[in-house]
Amino acid sequence: MRYKITFSYDGSNFNGYQVQPNLRTVQGELEKAVSFLNKKTYTQVVASGRTDKGVHALAQTAMFDLNINNTLYKIKRGLNSNLPEDIHIIDVIKVDDDFHARFNVKKKEYIYKLNTGEYDPINRNYIYQYNNKLDIESMDEAIKYFIGTHDFTSFVPTEDLKENPIRTIYKANIKRTNDIIEISFQADGFMKYQVRNMVGLLISIGEGKKKPSDVKNIINNKNRSQKFKTASPVGLYLKKVWY
Amino acid sequence: MRYKITFSYDGSNFNGYQVQPNLRTVQGELEKAVSFLNKKTYTQVVASGRTDKGVHALAQTAMFDLNINNTLYKIKRGLNSNLPEDIHIIDVIKVDDDFHARFNVKKKEYIYKLNTGEYDPINRNYIYQYNNKLDIESMDEAIKYFIGTHDFTSFVPTEDLKENPIRTIYKANIKRTNDIIEISFQADGFMKYQVRNMVGLLISIGEGKKKPSDVKNIINNKNRSQKFKTASPVGLYLKKVWY
Repeated sequence: MRYKITFSYDGSNFNGYQVQPNLRTVQGELEKAVSFLNKKTYTQVVASGRTDKGVHALAQTAMFDLNINNTLYKIKRGLNSNLPEDIHIIDVIKVDDDFHARFNVKKKEYIYKLNTGEYDPINRNYIYQYNNKLDIESMDEAIKYFIGTHDFTSFVPTEDLKENPIRTIYKANIKRTNDIIEISFQADGFMKYQVRNMVGLLISIGEGKKKPSDVKNIINNKNRSQKFKTASPVGLYLKKVWY
Repeated sequence: MRYKITFSYDGSNFNGYQVQPNLRTVQGELEKAVSFLNKKTYTQVVASGRTDKGVHALAQTAMFDLNINNTLYKIKRGLNSNLPEDIHIIDVIKVDDDFHARFNVKKKEYIYKLNTGEYDPINRNYIYQYNNKLDIESMDEAIKYFIGTHDFTSFVPTEDLKENPIRTIYKANIKRTNDIIEISFQADGFMKYQVRNMVGLLISIGEGKKKPSDVKNIINNKNRSQKFKTASPVGLYLKKVWY
């Protein structure tokens, strides 16, 4: 039987989501816990997508097949008791056998947090410590250019451009609360480093090094070689996945 | 010349504030950085008070004497560049030679954060993961009994009761935002474990194991042997020190 889990993790001490030999990864820890529950037989866990090293998740999703019969509550409890303290299963549901955690994704939301005020040691792994002023009005004007259906080639490292680079961004917002800026994007999908590159460009605009309308030009150029930063993974959170 | 610093720290990876041989402490790291700046001669740093292992500070204060002449900006920058990423100097000011960081304290504020919702791996070191419902109305009624001048003997481990146990609590508040409860206390001073014991009693009241009016009785009994929990240090923050 196939199950879908919703889970959160602190990306600080993982080498990203995806399994890698001899490295601590979210998928590696999940597969250990799921396999243990599944009569100790290796069980693959397939997520909605990967997250990079240092990136956090508030509600990532994944699927796996179990050969045992157990209540959802017991599966949740069993997994959580076998997972380390930096991963937590929020919810387990039964899904159809043809459900796919990656291919059936309809929409995803990422948020990015950055601190424009004094360096904050308590949030050093959870909010990007930019620690400088940014022109939020320009950034707010700029972010609107991302909304809609575009070819996002300019925001993906050339070596990672394996697929169709067209994506639709449904919502893109900037919110400021005191010194903390929170940038959010909802789209039908995101490519590797796309969010971090869009945020990097927004930071360049907030610094006055680029103009808001440059977003439009950079998208239209379809070329990653244009100069702007890739934002640190520290402030990035996968917030929600819709099916 | 005497200087007063205001600084923040993430208590997670320290064995508390106070220097201890062969252990990583906030005071130890501060004295290393200050001594390095002070022509590499050992320089004592005296804080407003200690914090326990795992307790955080948003704005702790301390003093030290320097034999060098430097701008406040350069002292701040010099210290921050020699401090680890989990301590940060927010502010440096010059003070009179008779200023004392501990004896001159007029008021302190501590806050305590607890999560009554789903376990949150991202905040596991910063918000106490209680992960259960609490009756906030009872806690709100109970906390008012702490306000005023009382003998707090019942909230201090007997072996730590070395001084006058009378303290005045000026303000005590509970605020709930979604699943997060934030409890704050402002007083002329706090004894060892006092805040964690007051919060522990409030949790027992929120659980329905004690009544709000028990706060009054427990204070009046002047005896630590009464049964209630000491709250985990994880959710505790020294928020502000007034002189």
